[in-house]
Amino acid sequence: MPTPASNDADHIIIGIDPGTNLMGYGILRIYGPASRRKLEMVTMGVIRLNKFEDHYMRLHRIYERVLSLVEQYLPDEMAIEAPFFGKNVQSMLKLGRAQGVAIAAALARDVPIAEYEPRSIKMAITGNGGASKEQVREMIRRILNIPDSSLEGIELDATDALAAALCHHYESTRPLPRKSASSWKDFIQKNPDRVR
Amino acid sequence: MPTPASNDADHIIIGIDPGTNLMGYGILRIYGPASRRKLEMVTMGVIRLNKFEDHYMRLHRIYERVLSLVEQYLPDEMAIEAPFFGKNVQSMLKLGRAQGVAIAAALARDVPIAEYEPRSIKMAITGNGGASKEQVREMIRRILNIPDSSLEGIELDATDALAAALCHHYESTRPLPRKSASSWKDFIQKNPDRVR
Repeated sequence: MPTPASNDADHIIIGIDPGTNLMGYGILRIYGPASRRKLEMVTMGVIRLNKFEDHYMRLHRIYERVLSLVEQYLPDEMAIEAPFFGKNVQSMLKLGRAQGVAIAAALARDVPIAEYEPRSIKMAITGNGGASKEQVREMIRRILNIPDSSLEGIELDATDALAAALCHHYESTRPLPRKSASSWKDFIQKNPDRVR
Repeated sequence: MPTPASNDADHIIIGIDPGTNLMGYGILRIYGPASRRKLEMVTMGVIRLNKFEDHYMRLHRIYERVLSLVEQYLPDEMAIEAPFFGKNVQSMLKLGRAQGVAIAAALARDVPIAEYEPRSIKMAITGNGGASKEQVREMIRRILNIPDSSLEGIELDATDALAAALCHHYESTRPLPRKSASSWKDFIQKNPDRVR
Protein backbone atom coordinates (compact mmCIF):
# COMPACT_ATOMS: atom_id res chain seq x y z
CA MET A 1 0.00 0.00 0.00
CA PRO A 2 1.48 3.37 -0.95
CA THR A 3 2.17 5.71 1.94
CA PRO A 4 1.61 9.43 1.61
CA ALA A 5 4.47 11.04 -0.27
CA SER A 6 7.02 12.75 1.95
CA ASN A 7 7.28 15.79 -0.28
CA ASP A 8 4.81 18.58 -0.75
CA ALA A 9 2.57 16.64 -3.08
CA ASP A 10 -1.05 16.31 -2.05
CA HIS A 11 -2.27 12.97 -0.88
CA ILE A 12 -6.00 12.33 -0.97
CA ILE A 13 -7.83 9.63 0.98
CA ILE A 14 -11.52 8.94 0.51
CA GLY A 15 -13.22 7.45 3.56
CA ILE A 16 -16.39 5.42 3.16
CA ASP A 17 -18.82 4.25 5.83
CA PRO A 18 -21.02 1.87 3.88
CA GLY A 19 -24.56 1.22 4.95
CA THR A 20 -27.71 0.15 3.19
CA ASN A 21 -29.74 3.22 4.25
CA LEU A 22 -27.08 5.92 4.38
CA MET A 23 -23.54 5.70 3.05
CA GLY A 24 -21.17 8.25 4.51
CA TYR A 25 -18.16 9.64 2.66
CA GLY A 26 -15.38 12.04 3.54
CA ILE A 27 -12.44 13.35 1.54
CA LEU A 28 -9.23 14.00 3.46
CA ARG A 29 -6.32 15.94 1.96
CA ILE A 30 -2.80 15.64 3.35
CA TYR A 31 -0.26 18.20 2.16
CA GLY A 32 2.90 20.02 3.07
CA PRO A 33 6.39 18.68 3.88
CA ALA A 34 6.68 15.64 6.14
CA SER A 35 7.91 17.73 9.04
CA ARG A 36 4.92 20.08 8.87
CA ARG A 37 2.25 17.86 7.38
CA LYS A 38 -1.19 19.41 7.26
CA LEU A 39 -4.56 17.76 7.21
CA GLU A 40 -7.70 19.17 5.67
CA MET A 41 -11.25 18.08 5.19
CA VAL A 42 -12.09 18.64 1.52
CA THR A 43 -15.71 17.58 1.71
CA MET A 44 -17.99 15.10 3.41
CA GLY A 45 -21.58 13.97 3.17
CA VAL A 46 -23.92 11.05 2.85
CA ILE A 47 -25.45 9.17 -0.02
CA ARG A 48 -29.12 8.75 0.84
CA LEU A 49 -30.42 5.33 -0.07
CA ASN A 50 -33.61 4.97 1.92
CA LYS A 51 -35.57 6.90 -0.69
CA PHE A 52 -35.09 3.96 -3.05
CA GLU A 53 -37.26 0.99 -2.25
CA ASP A 54 -35.59 -1.25 -4.79
CA HIS A 55 -32.42 -2.96 -3.64
CA TYR A 56 -30.73 -2.67 -7.06
CA MET A 57 -31.57 1.02 -7.29
CA ARG A 58 -29.72 1.46 -4.01
CA LEU A 59 -26.71 -0.49 -5.23
CA HIS A 60 -26.73 1.42 -8.52
CA ARG A 61 -26.84 4.69 -6.59
CA ILE A 62 -23.87 3.66 -4.40
CA TYR A 63 -21.85 2.62 -7.44
CA GLU A 64 -22.57 5.80 -9.38
CA ARG A 65 -21.97 8.17 -6.47
CA VAL A 66 -18.78 6.52 -5.23
CA LEU A 67 -17.44 6.36 -8.80
CA SER A 68 -18.26 10.02 -9.26
CA LEU A 69 -16.47 10.95 -5.99
CA VAL A 70 -13.46 8.92 -7.12
CA GLU A 71 -13.44 10.65 -10.50
CA GLN A 72 -13.91 14.11 -8.98
CA TYR A 73 -11.37 13.97 -6.15
CA LEU A 74 -8.93 11.41 -7.60
CA PRO A 75 -8.11 9.81 -4.25
CA ASP A 76 -4.83 7.94 -3.86
CA GLU A 77 -6.48 5.47 -1.53
CA MET A 78 -9.84 4.43 -0.17
CA ALA A 79 -10.43 3.57 3.49
CA ILE A 80 -13.59 1.65 4.36
CA GLU A 81 -15.18 1.18 7.74
CA ALA A 82 -16.00 -2.50 7.63
CA PRO A 83 -17.66 -4.35 10.49
CA PHE A 84 -16.70 -8.00 10.49
CA PHE A 85 -19.74 -9.06 12.43
CA GLY A 86 -23.44 -8.41 12.33
CA LYS A 87 -26.52 -9.67 14.01
CA ASN A 88 -27.86 -11.85 11.24
CA VAL A 89 -26.90 -13.33 7.89
CA GLN A 90 -29.53 -11.28 6.07
CA SER A 91 -28.14 -7.93 7.14
CA MET A 92 -24.58 -9.09 6.49
CA LEU A 93 -25.41 -10.16 2.94
CA LYS A 94 -26.98 -6.75 2.27
CA LEU A 95 -24.06 -4.96 3.88
CA GLY A 96 -21.63 -7.10 1.89
CA ARG A 97 -23.37 -6.13 -1.34
CA ALA A 98 -23.27 -2.43 -0.44
CA GLN A 99 -19.59 -2.73 0.41
CA GLY A 100 -19.01 -4.73 -2.77
CA VAL A 101 -20.36 -2.09 -5.14
CA ALA A 102 -18.46 0.69 -3.32
CA ILE A 103 -15.29 -1.42 -3.54
CA ALA A 104 -15.96 -2.06 -7.24
CA ALA A 105 -16.16 1.69 -7.89
CA ALA A 106 -12.66 2.04 -6.40
CA LEU A 107 -11.33 -1.03 -8.22
CA ALA A 108 -12.74 0.33 -11.48
CA ARG A 109 -10.31 3.26 -11.16
CA ASP A 110 -7.46 1.25 -9.62
CA VAL A 111 -7.72 2.91 -6.22
CA PRO A 112 -6.19 0.71 -3.50
CA ILE A 113 -8.48 -0.09 -0.59
CA ALA A 114 -7.83 -0.54 3.11
CA GLU A 115 -10.48 -1.52 5.60
CA TYR A 116 -10.75 -0.93 9.29
CA GLU A 117 -13.09 -2.27 11.91
CA PRO A 118 -15.22 0.39 13.63
CA ARG A 119 -13.41 -0.26 16.90
CA SER A 120 -9.98 0.32 15.33
CA ILE A 121 -11.14 3.62 13.85
CA LYS A 122 -12.54 4.83 17.17
CA MET A 123 -9.33 3.83 18.89
CA ALA A 124 -7.16 5.63 16.32
CA ILE A 125 -9.21 8.84 16.47
CA THR A 126 -10.24 9.09 20.12
CA GLY A 127 -7.97 6.64 21.93
CA ASN A 128 -11.05 4.72 23.01
CA GLY A 129 -12.35 1.78 20.96
CA GLY A 130 -15.75 2.14 22.58
CA ALA A 131 -16.17 5.85 21.81
CA SER A 132 -19.57 7.10 20.64
CA LYS A 133 -20.11 8.49 17.15
CA GLU A 134 -20.56 11.92 18.74
CA GLN A 135 -17.16 11.66 20.41
CA VAL A 136 -15.62 10.65 17.08
CA ARG A 137 -17.24 13.66 15.43
CA GLU A 138 -15.93 15.99 18.15
CA MET A 139 -12.36 14.71 17.74
CA ILE A 140 -12.60 14.94 13.95
CA ARG A 141 -13.83 18.53 14.32
CA ARG A 142 -10.85 19.44 16.49
CA ILE A 143 -8.16 17.59 14.55
CA LEU A 144 -9.25 18.97 11.19
CA ASN A 145 -10.31 22.39 12.48
CA ILE A 146 -13.73 22.07 10.96
CA PRO A 147 -15.89 25.12 11.66
CA ASP A 148 -19.14 24.36 13.49
CA SER A 149 -21.08 25.75 10.55
CA SER A 150 -19.70 22.98 8.33
CA LEU A 151 -21.00 20.36 10.75
CA GLU A 152 -24.54 21.66 10.93
CA GLY A 153 -26.98 19.11 9.60
CA ILE A 154 -24.16 16.72 8.76
CA GLU A 155 -24.94 13.10 9.62
CA LEU A 156 -22.67 11.09 11.86
CA ASP A 157 -22.13 8.69 8.96
CA ALA A 158 -20.20 11.46 7.20
CA THR A 159 -17.88 12.16 10.15
CA ASP A 160 -17.47 8.41 10.59
CA ALA A 161 -16.31 8.16 6.98
CA LEU A 162 -13.87 11.00 7.50
CA ALA A 163 -12.65 9.18 10.61
CA ALA A 164 -11.94 6.09 8.49
CA ALA A 165 -9.83 8.22 6.13
CA LEU A 166 -7.97 9.84 9.02
CA CYS A 167 -7.42 6.47 10.71
CA HIS A 168 -5.89 5.20 7.47
CA HIS A 169 -3.61 8.22 7.29
CA TYR A 170 -2.39 7.55 10.84
CA GLU A 171 -1.90 3.87 10.13
CA SER A 172 0.01 4.56 6.92
CA THR A 173 2.38 7.08 8.44
CA ARG A 174 3.16 5.84 11.92
CA PRO A 175 6.59 4.27 12.22
CA LEU A 176 5.51 1.22 14.22
CA PRO A 177 4.19 -1.89 12.54
CA ARG A 178 0.48 -1.56 11.99
CA LYS A 179 -1.66 -3.36 14.44
CA SER A 180 -5.19 -2.23 13.92
CA ALA A 181 -5.40 -2.44 10.15
CA SER A 182 -7.78 -5.22 9.41
CA SER A 183 -7.81 -7.44 6.42
CA TRP A 184 -9.50 -10.69 5.68
CA LYS A 185 -6.13 -12.37 5.72
CA ASP A 186 -5.30 -11.08 9.19
CA PHE A 187 -8.77 -11.85 10.38
CA ILE A 188 -8.67 -15.40 9.13
CA GLN A 189 -5.25 -15.96 10.64
CA LYS A 190 -6.40 -14.67 13.99
CA ASN A 191 -9.80 -16.34 13.97
CA PRO A 192 -9.49 -19.57 12.01
CA ASP A 193 -12.51 -21.02 13.78
CA ARG A 194 -14.78 -18.12 12.88
CA VAL A 195 -14.37 -18.39 9.15
CA ARG A 196 -15.52 -21.26 7.00
CA MET B 1 -37.78 -5.87 -16.64
CA PRO B 2 -37.72 -6.26 -20.43
CA THR B 3 -38.97 -9.60 -21.71
CA PRO B 4 -37.33 -11.26 -24.69
CA ALA B 5 -38.45 -9.63 -27.91
CA SER B 6 -41.12 -11.53 -29.79
CA ASN B 7 -39.44 -11.04 -33.13
CA ASP B 8 -36.34 -12.72 -34.48
CA ALA B 9 -33.92 -10.49 -32.60
CA ASP B 10 -31.41 -12.25 -30.41
CA HIS B 11 -31.86 -12.01 -26.69
CA ILE B 12 -28.83 -12.70 -24.53
CA ILE B 13 -28.92 -13.57 -20.84
CA ILE B 14 -25.77 -13.91 -18.75
CA GLY B 15 -26.14 -16.23 -15.78
CA ILE B 16 -23.84 -15.83 -12.79
CA ASP B 17 -23.31 -18.21 -9.88
CA PRO B 18 -21.26 -16.07 -7.52
CA GLY B 19 -18.91 -17.66 -5.07
CA THR B 20 -15.76 -16.59 -3.31
CA ASN B 21 -13.65 -19.49 -4.62
CA LEU B 22 -15.21 -20.13 -8.01
CA MET B 23 -17.66 -17.91 -9.85
CA GLY B 24 -19.60 -19.66 -12.58
CA TYR B 25 -20.93 -17.93 -15.68
CA GLY B 26 -23.00 -18.99 -18.64
CA ILE B 27 -24.22 -17.09 -21.69
CA LEU B 28 -27.62 -18.10 -23.05
CA ARG B 29 -28.86 -16.95 -26.46
CA ILE B 30 -32.55 -16.96 -27.33
CA TYR B 31 -33.45 -16.44 -30.97
CA GLY B 32 -36.03 -17.11 -33.63
CA PRO B 33 -39.74 -16.15 -33.76
CA ALA B 34 -41.83 -16.53 -30.60
CA SER B 35 -43.60 -19.59 -31.98
CA ARG B 36 -40.34 -21.41 -32.65
CA ARG B 37 -38.03 -19.87 -30.11
CA LYS B 38 -34.63 -21.51 -29.94
CA LEU B 39 -32.20 -21.66 -27.08
CA GLU B 40 -28.46 -21.95 -27.35
CA MET B 41 -25.54 -22.02 -24.99
CA VAL B 42 -23.02 -19.48 -26.29
CA THR B 43 -20.33 -20.19 -23.71
CA MET B 44 -19.85 -21.07 -20.06
CA GLY B 45 -17.03 -21.37 -17.60
CA VAL B 46 -15.73 -20.38 -14.22
CA ILE B 47 -13.67 -17.53 -12.87
CA ARG B 48 -11.07 -19.09 -10.59
CA LEU B 49 -10.52 -17.09 -7.46
CA ASN B 50 -8.82 -19.50 -5.09
CA LYS B 51 -5.43 -18.79 -6.65
CA PHE B 52 -5.61 -15.29 -5.15
CA GLU B 53 -4.97 -15.16 -1.44
CA ASP B 54 -5.89 -11.51 -1.14
CA HIS B 55 -9.56 -10.76 -0.78
CA TYR B 56 -9.38 -7.56 -2.89
CA MET B 57 -7.53 -9.35 -5.65
CA ARG B 58 -10.45 -11.76 -5.79
CA LEU B 59 -12.99 -8.97 -5.92
CA HIS B 60 -10.96 -7.16 -8.56
CA ARG B 61 -10.80 -10.34 -10.62
CA ILE B 62 -14.58 -10.82 -10.38
CA TYR B 63 -15.23 -7.22 -11.40
CA GLU B 64 -12.85 -7.34 -14.35
CA ARG B 65 -14.00 -10.70 -15.68
CA VAL B 66 -17.73 -10.04 -15.33
CA LEU B 67 -17.31 -6.61 -16.94
CA SER B 68 -15.35 -8.19 -19.77
CA LEU B 69 -18.08 -10.83 -20.29
CA VAL B 70 -20.72 -8.08 -20.31
CA GLU B 71 -18.72 -6.08 -22.86
CA GLN B 72 -18.02 -9.11 -25.02
CA TYR B 73 -21.49 -10.69 -25.13
CA LEU B 74 -23.62 -7.56 -24.57
CA PRO B 75 -26.29 -9.37 -22.53
CA ASP B 76 -29.78 -7.88 -22.33
CA GLU B 77 -30.11 -9.12 -18.75
CA MET B 78 -28.17 -10.74 -15.96
CA ALA B 79 -29.56 -13.54 -13.81
CA ILE B 80 -27.82 -14.26 -10.51
CA GLU B 81 -28.13 -17.31 -8.33
CA ALA B 82 -28.43 -15.72 -4.92
CA PRO B 83 -28.86 -17.69 -1.73
CA PHE B 84 -30.72 -15.68 0.89
CA PHE B 85 -29.31 -17.66 3.76
CA GLY B 86 -25.95 -18.95 4.84
CA LYS B 87 -24.48 -20.62 7.83
CA ASN B 88 -22.71 -17.64 9.35
CA VAL B 89 -22.43 -13.88 9.07
CA GLN B 90 -18.79 -14.07 7.97
CA SER B 91 -19.48 -16.17 4.90
CA MET B 92 -22.53 -14.06 4.05
CA LEU B 93 -20.53 -10.83 4.18
CA LYS B 94 -17.92 -12.33 1.84
CA LEU B 95 -20.60 -13.70 -0.46
CA GLY B 96 -22.37 -10.33 -0.40
CA ARG B 97 -19.18 -8.58 -1.48
CA ALA B 98 -18.60 -11.07 -4.30
CA GLN B 99 -22.21 -10.59 -5.43
CA GLY B 100 -21.81 -6.82 -5.05
CA VAL B 101 -18.87 -6.48 -7.41
CA ALA B 102 -20.51 -8.79 -9.99
CA ILE B 103 -23.68 -6.70 -9.72
CA ALA B 104 -21.63 -3.50 -10.07
CA ALA B 105 -20.12 -4.78 -13.31
CA ALA B 106 -23.65 -5.21 -14.70
CA LEU B 107 -24.83 -1.86 -13.32
CA ALA B 108 -21.78 -0.18 -14.88
CA ARG B 109 -23.16 -1.16 -18.29
CA ASP B 110 -26.84 -0.67 -17.42
CA VAL B 111 -27.67 -4.36 -17.60
CA PRO B 112 -30.82 -5.15 -15.57
CA ILE B 113 -30.42 -7.85 -12.94
CA ALA B 114 -32.75 -10.54 -11.66
CA GLU B 115 -31.92 -12.90 -8.86
CA TYR B 116 -33.18 -16.35 -8.06
CA GLU B 117 -32.76 -18.55 -5.07
CA PRO B 118 -30.98 -21.86 -5.76
CA ARG B 119 -34.16 -23.74 -4.99
CA SER B 120 -36.18 -21.73 -7.51
CA ILE B 121 -33.61 -22.40 -10.21
CA LYS B 122 -33.58 -26.13 -9.54
CA MET B 123 -37.35 -26.18 -9.58
CA ALA B 124 -37.52 -24.27 -12.89
CA ILE B 125 -34.95 -26.50 -14.58
CA THR B 126 -35.64 -29.96 -13.16
CA GLY B 127 -39.08 -29.65 -11.57
CA ASN B 128 -37.49 -30.53 -8.22
CA GLY B 129 -36.30 -27.81 -5.87
CA GLY B 130 -34.04 -30.29 -4.12
CA ALA B 131 -32.29 -31.54 -7.27
CA SER B 132 -28.53 -32.11 -7.17
CA LYS B 133 -26.11 -30.00 -9.20
CA GLU B 134 -25.48 -33.08 -11.35
CA GLN B 135 -29.19 -33.39 -12.11
CA VAL B 136 -29.29 -29.69 -13.03
CA ARG B 137 -26.33 -30.19 -15.36
CA GLU B 138 -28.00 -33.18 -17.01
CA MET B 139 -31.21 -31.22 -17.67
CA ILE B 140 -29.22 -28.26 -18.97
CA ARG B 141 -27.35 -30.62 -21.30
CA ARG B 142 -30.59 -32.00 -22.69
CA ILE B 143 -32.52 -28.73 -22.97
CA LEU B 144 -29.68 -26.89 -24.71
CA ASN B 145 -28.42 -29.91 -26.68
CA ILE B 146 -24.92 -29.46 -25.36
CA PRO B 147 -22.54 -32.11 -26.72
CA ASP B 148 -20.84 -34.22 -24.05
CA SER B 149 -17.46 -32.96 -25.26
CA SER B 150 -18.41 -29.39 -24.28
CA LEU B 151 -19.15 -30.55 -20.75
CA GLU B 152 -15.84 -32.32 -20.19
CA GLY B 153 -13.90 -30.70 -17.39
CA ILE B 154 -16.60 -28.06 -16.92
CA GLU B 155 -17.34 -27.27 -13.28
CA LEU B 156 -20.85 -27.55 -11.91
CA ASP B 157 -20.68 -23.82 -11.08
CA ALA B 158 -20.73 -23.14 -14.83
CA THR B 159 -23.82 -25.27 -15.49
CA ASP B 160 -25.43 -23.74 -12.40
CA ALA B 161 -24.86 -20.28 -13.88
CA LEU B 162 -26.35 -21.37 -17.19
CA ALA B 163 -29.31 -22.75 -15.22
CA ALA B 164 -29.83 -19.32 -13.63
CA ALA B 165 -29.94 -17.76 -17.11
CA LEU B 166 -32.37 -20.41 -18.37
CA CYS B 167 -34.54 -20.05 -15.26
CA HIS B 168 -34.74 -16.32 -15.93
CA HIS B 169 -35.74 -16.95 -19.53
CA TYR B 170 -38.57 -19.26 -18.38
CA GLU B 171 -39.71 -16.78 -15.74
CA SER B 172 -39.67 -13.88 -18.21
CA THR B 173 -41.65 -15.65 -20.90
CA ARG B 174 -44.21 -17.71 -19.08
CA PRO B 175 -47.72 -16.29 -19.21
CA LEU B 176 -48.59 -16.80 -15.55
CA PRO B 177 -47.59 -14.33 -12.89
CA ARG B 178 -44.11 -15.06 -11.68
CA LYS B 179 -43.87 -16.92 -8.48
CA SER B 180 -40.33 -18.00 -7.99
CA ALA B 181 -38.53 -14.81 -8.94
CA SER B 182 -36.94 -13.52 -5.80
CA SER B 183 -36.18 -9.96 -4.91
CA TRP B 184 -35.33 -8.27 -1.68
CA LYS B 185 -38.66 -6.54 -1.82
CA ASP B 186 -40.57 -9.81 -2.11
CA PHE B 187 -38.38 -11.39 0.48
CA ILE B 188 -38.92 -8.61 2.98
CA GLN B 189 -42.64 -8.63 2.37
CA LYS B 190 -42.80 -12.35 2.93
CA ASN B 191 -40.40 -12.44 5.86
CA PRO B 192 -40.70 -9.18 7.75
CA ASP B 193 -39.36 -10.79 10.90
CA ARG B 194 -36.21 -12.07 9.23
CA VAL B 195 -34.94 -8.72 8.08
CA ARG B 196 -33.80 -5.91 10.30
